[in-house]
Amino acid sequence: MLLQIPDEMKNTKVILANRPKREIEDSNFDVIIEELNEIKDGEILIKIHDISLDPAIRGWMNEGTTYIKGIEIGAVVRTFSAGQVIQSKNSKFKEGSYLSGLLGAQNYCISNGEGLTPLDISNSKISHHLGILGMPGMTAYFGLLKRGEPVSGDIVYISGAAGIVGSTVGQIAKIKGCTVIGSAGSDAKCKFLIEECGFDYAINYKTEDIDQQLKKFAPNGIHIFFDNVGGPTLDIALLNLARGARVVICGAISQYNDMANIHGPKNYMKIVSARGKMNGIIVFDYVEQWPAAVKEIAEWINDGKIKVKEHTIFGLENFSSALKMLYTGENFGKLILNIGS
Amino acid sequence: MLLQIPDEMKNTKVILANRPKREIEDSNFDVIIEELNEIKDGEILIKIHDISLDPAIRGWMNEGTTYIKGIEIGAVVRTFSAGQVIQSKNSKFKEGSYLSGLLGAQNYCISNGEGLTPLDISNSKISHHLGILGMPGMTAYFGLLKRGEPVSGDIVYISGAAGIVGSTVGQIAKIKGCTVIGSAGSDAKCKFLIEECGFDYAINYKTEDIDQQLKKFAPNGIHIFFDNVGGPTLDIALLNLARGARVVICGAISQYNDMANIHGPKNYMKIVSARGKMNGIIVFDYVEQWPAAVKEIAEWINDGKIKVKEHTIFGLENFSSALKMLYTGENFGKLILNIGS
Repeated sequence: MLLQIPDEMKNTKVILANRPKREIEDSNFDVIIEELNEIKDGEILIKIHDISLDPAIRGWMNEGTTYIKGIEIGAVVRTFSAGQVIQSKNSKFKEGSYLSGLLGAQNYCISNGEGLTPLDISNSKISHHLGILGMPGMTAYFGLLKRGEPVSGDIVYISGAAGIVGSTVGQIAKIKGCTVIGSAGSDAKCKFLIEECGFDYAINYKTEDIDQQLKKFAPNGIHIFFDNVGGPTLDIALLNLARGARVVICGAISQYNDMANIHGPKNYMKIVSARGKMNGIIVFDYVEQWPAAVKEIAEWINDGKIKVKEHTIFGLENFSSALKMLYTGENFGKLILNIGS
Repeated sequence: MLLQIPDEMKNTKVILANRPKREIEDSNFDVIIEELNEIKDGEILIKIHDISLDPAIRGWMNEGTTYIKGIEIGAVVRTFSAGQVIQSKNSKFKEGSYLSGLLGAQNYCISNGEGLTPLDISNSKISHHLGILGMPGMTAYFGLLKRGEPVSGDIVYISGAAGIVGSTVGQIAKIKGCTVIGSAGSDAKCKFLIEECGFDYAINYKTEDIDQQLKKFAPNGIHIFFDNVGGPTLDIALLNLARGARVVICGAISQYNDMANIHGPKNYMKIVSARGKMNGIIVFDYVEQWPAAVKEIAEWINDGKIKVKEHTIFGLENFSSALKMLYTGENFGKLILNIGS
């Protein structure tokens, strides 16, 4: 295998220039080119192939610490990325091998290997390890199974269902014998949910009344609500809980651009009358169980039980315009920025 | 025992004249006097002694069904009341015996006995069976123990702590080895929490900054938040959750007067980052376990481990003015309307 090592050892990277007040703007980022240092003992040089564009990035751009520290001004934008080791002075990482981790939005990354995950790409696409076999897939798997506690026959409603997390939750719920309802923002996405992902019902939230449709599809209420969206969508779901319902908060994409004025769920008392509970999923809590989950999901994919949809944008220069698509719902499938194979 | 049977068999009762839009007003109620029917086979005539004024009544005055149907216009106002059987054509209920139940805001009640609880008042005050030995005490007991899952060493924060539910939760939490923080609306109430109820810390929410005080008393966060108040108080508590915290929603007294514009907890995502959960307590779910709980609490009272405070108003004509005290925090202790011994 011929490894492509840069002649001049220059790296192009996207840095955080300033913090967005609400929506992400192109001016929040700078693209800079810098000399790459020689790697030291214990380090590896990684050539990045694919960058994962995830909703979580917007939160990381805020100041302060939530479950993880905000990105510093001037630092490379934190992203999950996947690439190949092209130089290694660390015996744990062989040149030519593939890995993923928080490598950032850049062409090259020098790392001591800490926190990186080796990838077996013999039976899978590299980019899948940033999606269904990576953090989003793990979020779906552990969020549904550990926090939603599905039982065969349960009715599961998923908001933001056409995203990588939502579509994976729904497909795993189908495997577990549940009836699955998803909401998404276009007829094409709804068609994808029904025809490719095997959902039982889909709701186009832009043209249909979610409350009305939920009452039609689940007249006795929903047992699990898996929420990627927050805001009014969460409030509507709370009106439709079955007794003992589990509300799994995964994300709140509708709220991330204005965290100071977040829409709290005014129907939260419905959790009480439904004898339900609201909890959430932090995927890092299950990191030791990721390898087994990756194996199980890969088998489901190979058996044709789970379908994956990717939306690929090319070129590091398109980082911010691609990232913004997440918050407008323009992307259709897991959003990947490919910066070279 | 000489039972007082009314000569003319007239009953005075408080009925719902119309529904409040926001705050309860005197004009929402009418007091009417009506003939009492003769009791039929299977029925009993109860002379009511004490009426419990509970926050839940405001919710019952709304139209529609939540966990229980709203009071009909023209019907006697639903309340928990306690009294004595003065005529019985039901072999299960002896004349002279005491009982409690949803007997309503009236002097007399004719009942078939369904849903009524016999009271043993040999070692307890009748009115205690409407408070610490009745629904509020049961709410505290099962809400804390079943839904809050306290472990010795936990830090428990209770809002509306000087009320009958809050003060009972705190005292049971102390018995279970927890550190207890309560918030209430006056220095006198805070003094009561510390000096009589044995709370570790008290916060006067009208003069102190709850967030600041919680950070001082529980710098590593609270393990259980038992919420009687809702609104901004809930939001502040969510900022102070320890890892794995349980948020037990019992009530939202700050919100009941304007349910259309309820303040949803905008910090609900903190439940996710704390790996916590939010659930609630519906006391009727534990009705089969009430007798054992009553026995245990009565022992704690007799052993001096739990203190009870009552605030008694006299006369059915004061029903609405007494009820309104609940929402302004004017009452200090379990609010009881005594209408004759």
